[in-house]
Amino acid sequence: MIDQTTITVRYAETDRMGVVYYANYLVWFEVGRTSLLKKIGLPYRQIEEDHGYQTMVREVKCTYSAPATYDDDVIIESSISSVKNSSLVFDQKALLNGKLLAEAKIVLVFVRDGKATRIPDDIKGKLIANAER
Amino acid sequence: MIDQTTITVRYAETDRMGVVYYANYLVWFEVGRTSLLKKIGLPYRQIEEDHGYQTMVREVKCTYSAPATYDDDVIIESSISSVKNSSLVFDQKALLNGKLLAEAKIVLVFVRDGKATRIPDDIKGKLIANAER
Amino acid sequence: MIDQTTITVRYAETDRMGVVYYANYLVWFEVGRTSLLKKIGLPYRQIEEDHGYQTMVREVKCTYSAPATYDDDVIIESSISSVKNSSLVFDQKALLNGKLLAEAKIVLVFVRDGKATRIPDDIKGKLIANAER
Amino acid sequence: MIDQTTITVRYAETDRMGVVYYANYLVWFEVGRTSLLKKIGLPYRQIEEDHGYQTMVREVKCTYSAPATYDDDVIIESSISSVKNSSLVFDQKALLNGKLLAEAKIVLVFVRDGKATRIPDDIKGKLIANAER
Repeated sequence: MIDQTTITVRYAETDRMGVVYYANYLVWFEVGRTSLLKKIGLPYRQIEEDHGYQTMVREVKCTYSAPATYDDDVIIESSISSVKNSSLVFDQKALLNGKLLAEAKIVLVFVRDGKATRIPDDIKGKLIANAER
Repeated sequence: MIDQTTITVRYAETDRMGVVYYANYLVWFEVGRTSLLKKIGLPYRQIEEDHGYQTMVREVKCTYSAPATYDDDVIIESSISSVKNSSLVFDQKALLNGKLLAEAKIVLVFVRDGKATRIPDDIKGKLIANAER
Repeated sequence: MIDQTTITVRYAETDRMGVVYYANYLVWFEVGRTSLLKKIGLPYRQIEEDHGYQTMVREVKCTYSAPATYDDDVIIESSISSVKNSSLVFDQKALLNGKLLAEAKIVLVFVRDGKATRIPDDIKGKLIANAER
Repeated sequence: MIDQTTITVRYAETDRMGVVYYANYLVWFEVGRTSLLKKIGLPYRQIEEDHGYQTMVREVKCTYSAPATYDDDVIIESSISSVKNSSLVFDQKALLNGKLLAEAKIVLVFVRDGKATRIPDDIKGKLIANAER
């Protein structure tokens, strides 16, 4: 299960170098995670509002290879690469016309009342069932 | 009482035109309001955390006259121009070396549990005492 | 000609009040203008890259009526309300399930080499042909 | 040479979890790099405007340990950990009251006319002279 979602670059996301500012890829990757989780029947909004859990980013490793600019249609590819007791790892890419722009590994931790917590079984099951192998 | 606070333009705040993106002035004006409220003994963080109130922006009128760019030291001037039962109005300016960049009138409403509410008397008193006349 | 484009609220666009931060509506309205201009055959990217013109925001009047939050599907409605020699005015709205969230009037000026300039005739013609009457 | 610069968290930088959104740390780290480069006599603005070079982020590794919220005074610590022919590495930390919030290693590449290029000798000399050993 690899989710693909398209982002049209906003003017606000460019900087005076004429290209997308590096922090904005993290915003896009989160849009990608939202899209993937919705597709596998685990809308993140429900995880927060109905289940009372939140996820916090613990780690980001991101490599940038090529820039994008205003009005480019960037594709964000997202997949779950591993699921542990209280954390999960996403593999994410940003692509433009098939060319890799950036690639990241993002570790998230499940949190309840501000503390790291075990991922509840029903959620964990769906995450594992949709993880890449 | 006119508050002045300095903002050094961040690279992220510029766009591909080479200048500061227009929405960022609203972020800066809020930095200015935070600074003014702290200076008059009403830190907004306490208004939220201790008093249980919030403010929501109801209206923005902003005129832009000149651009700023990366690493410019922009001065934000903020003053309270009127205080009503449940709302207040800020006059705010962004200046660079004495030159006006942007000027705004921003109306905020006091809110409690998501609903507009009367500004409590002690807070209202301090706001009025520090309003421009 | 009223353009409609949908924006799914990003987590990054919310603030600690739980709702969308007020400056982000200006980012969305620009996404709306990009969409409208593309639809009438005047992609803004081409205006910049091929024609050598830029537009700068001169004035924003925005009224906020109701909040949006994470994962809401917000519709941005955009139309051109007037076209002058060197400037044009957009009327823009943000709606959620038919309810008005925010409404703005945004004045833009055509710029060349950093200076306000007359809108070239071919561009002006298309803008006028698609303006609301 | 370890640069320290203070950032007061803006309301816009928080998200609906009540804490600073993870992408904003990258914006702050760039503010830290701007501050460090200015302090060692290499203002980045001059590197771009006078020397015609730019830097692009090639790689980010960031670990998040604790959250910050609105109005917190976050200290950004920045140092140069290595300098190569066309790239350099920054070690950066975000701290709140002595507690580590986030820690990053950020690799930047010197660019000219959009292509990776050797760091000019005078700039390279100053970078090396101020690198941590």
